[in-house]
Amino acid sequence: MLEKQSREMETAGPWFVGVDVGGTNIECGVMDGSGKVVSRLRRPTLPGEGQEAVIGRIAGMATEAAVSAGLSIGRISAVGIGNPGFIDPIRGISLDSVNLGWRNVPTADLLTARLGLPVYVENDVKTYVYGEAMAGAGVGFRYVFGLTIGTGLAGAFVSDGSIFGGGDFLAGEIGHIPFDEIGYRCNCGLNGCLETMVSATGIARQAADAVKQGAGGILAERYAHAGAITAKDVHDAYTEGDPTARSVLDRTGRLLGKALSFVVPVLSPDVIIIGGGAAQAGAALLGPMEEELRGRLLPAYAERLQIRQAALGHDAGVIGNALYAKMRSGTV
Amino acid sequence: MLEKQSREMETAGPWFVGVDVGGTNIECGVMDGSGKVVSRLRRPTLPGEGQEAVIGRIAGMATEAAVSAGLSIGRISAVGIGNPGFIDPIRGISLDSVNLGWRNVPTADLLTARLGLPVYVENDVKTYVYGEAMAGAGVGFRYVFGLTIGTGLAGAFVSDGSIFGGGDFLAGEIGHIPFDEIGYRCNCGLNGCLETMVSATGIARQAADAVKQGAGGILAERYAHAGAITAKDVHDAYTEGDPTARSVLDRTGRLLGKALSFVVPVLSPDVIIIGGGAAQAGAALLGPMEEELRGRLLPAYAERLQIRQAALGHDAGVIGNALYAKMRSGTV
Repeated sequence: MLEKQSREMETAGPWFVGVDVGGTNIECGVMDGSGKVVSRLRRPTLPGEGQEAVIGRIAGMATEAAVSAGLSIGRISAVGIGNPGFIDPIRGISLDSVNLGWRNVPTADLLTARLGLPVYVENDVKTYVYGEAMAGAGVGFRYVFGLTIGTGLAGAFVSDGSIFGGGDFLAGEIGHIPFDEIGYRCNCGLNGCLETMVSATGIARQAADAVKQGAGGILAERYAHAGAITAKDVHDAYTEGDPTARSVLDRTGRLLGKALSFVVPVLSPDVIIIGGGAAQAGAALLGPMEEELRGRLLPAYAERLQIRQAALGHDAGVIGNALYAKMRSGTV
Repeated sequence: MLEKQSREMETAGPWFVGVDVGGTNIECGVMDGSGKVVSRLRRPTLPGEGQEAVIGRIAGMATEAAVSAGLSIGRISAVGIGNPGFIDPIRGISLDSVNLGWRNVPTADLLTARLGLPVYVENDVKTYVYGEAMAGAGVGFRYVFGLTIGTGLAGAFVSDGSIFGGGDFLAGEIGHIPFDEIGYRCNCGLNGCLETMVSATGIARQAADAVKQGAGGILAERYAHAGAITAKDVHDAYTEGDPTARSVLDRTGRLLGKALSFVVPVLSPDVIIIGGGAAQAGAALLGPMEEELRGRLLPAYAERLQIRQAALGHDAGVIGNALYAKMRSGTV
């Protein structure tokens, strides 16, 4: 009890819980009034156990995160949930979360019933970019376009501090734009979607295909040893000077740059923020991306556009969703 | 005097003047409180006479349009000006209007000084799409993306009744997105810009090139006779069954459809409105465009997206700019 009291004294309210619910893991934490993450925990999502079990797990984790920040759950002002897929943030419904196997789940109401708190739900990439816009790499910019290069690829636009939803809140699925030069079929049913190459999965796929087509070097050894290649393997091989890895990251970066050359004239963003696991490849990926992008822009756009890597790191999921809860609950 | 009184009785205020200032013509008219255009006139812009002469001509035409609607200029509530190029609508400055040869012209202040009225300036495509969104093909839709296929190609986005400007008000120059498969150099300095093919100029250029490369038929006869081909010639030839004309319009439509497959996932518009002179080619252009676009979209986008031709016709310039003045002056 003494310890809890002293920990609470180190932080000041209002407190918000942010929860990023991915297909693999749930990341949950408490953000305090200064925007600092004061507790955080991670558990496997186990979506196969069913929606009720996952909702129960989220509620349990929210309570646990509060307690480990020295707070009772009643001290939390609001909870923000980031879900993959199509979400109706106004009604708090997860319309179609493929990774979770959820369709038309009233996520906000189910969690409010368990926690007795206001709960807000939004697409996970939208809250991620919102967090970066308000408290990360986008601070000081008015028009922020952000994207996450992870298992898939998606983007979101924050304009004047508001997440842009578009018709039926569907804006952002830039990973599913087909490119004529991409030969892979996408899980979504379309051919040549950008994310079949521009994603961690896509980087690994390109490297594996290069090896199968006879490329030697570090990646071939890796493949022979492990039977598979990850995006991290590609980046590691790049760091060691492997030409196949360089060529995969260069091609991936250039494709993304080309895609962004369509986004910029439509939105005229002040800054583009690149996040997600695969963005950790850094200059190997983002150098070619930026070169390709800037070469395809009118000077009026190229001269003013900033490009930044995401800044919130491991706290991004908690901060983005907690800030979203703060905004929605009107405690800004 | 009697006539003026009776004409004024047919219309009810407030009245707004809308002026579309193009590189070739100035279109000016009065819109009444019911949204009807009650007078309209057109004069050559003659930008070569200099900025002061053109500003004077706009002021004279505004006064004349008011008088011919049976009103003194003092009865007009506000004036809206649509200028090509980059505009700062907040300060009322035409930053860079290439077609007029204007740079950093304080258009709003210069006209307010002459007319004694509030004057608002915005990019001409933005006010055009605003007019269609509020009083034309976009009525009833919340997220409206519109584009004009004229001498060039540009777009604008109206979200919840507001024109989206983006950083430095630059959003919309979709005509200057380079395509790898386009070989034409653009006046802007980039290679392969979309508008080098998707525009009236671009349609005429493709047809002339086809004839030069040996295509026969109606367009070849036309070229031999006139020494040039216009976009209207191409549409006329299409109507008469000419295969070269069909192929030019088909290719142009498909390119536009491909470009829009990038716009839709970024914005998730409810409706796309196609306007401008070349849009009069109708199904010959828009059929292939729509087929190409829908085939490249996730079902979630394709199922909800509406595509419409612009509806305001010859009144579009007056209505768009007059409605813009009405909105800016707060008399909505």
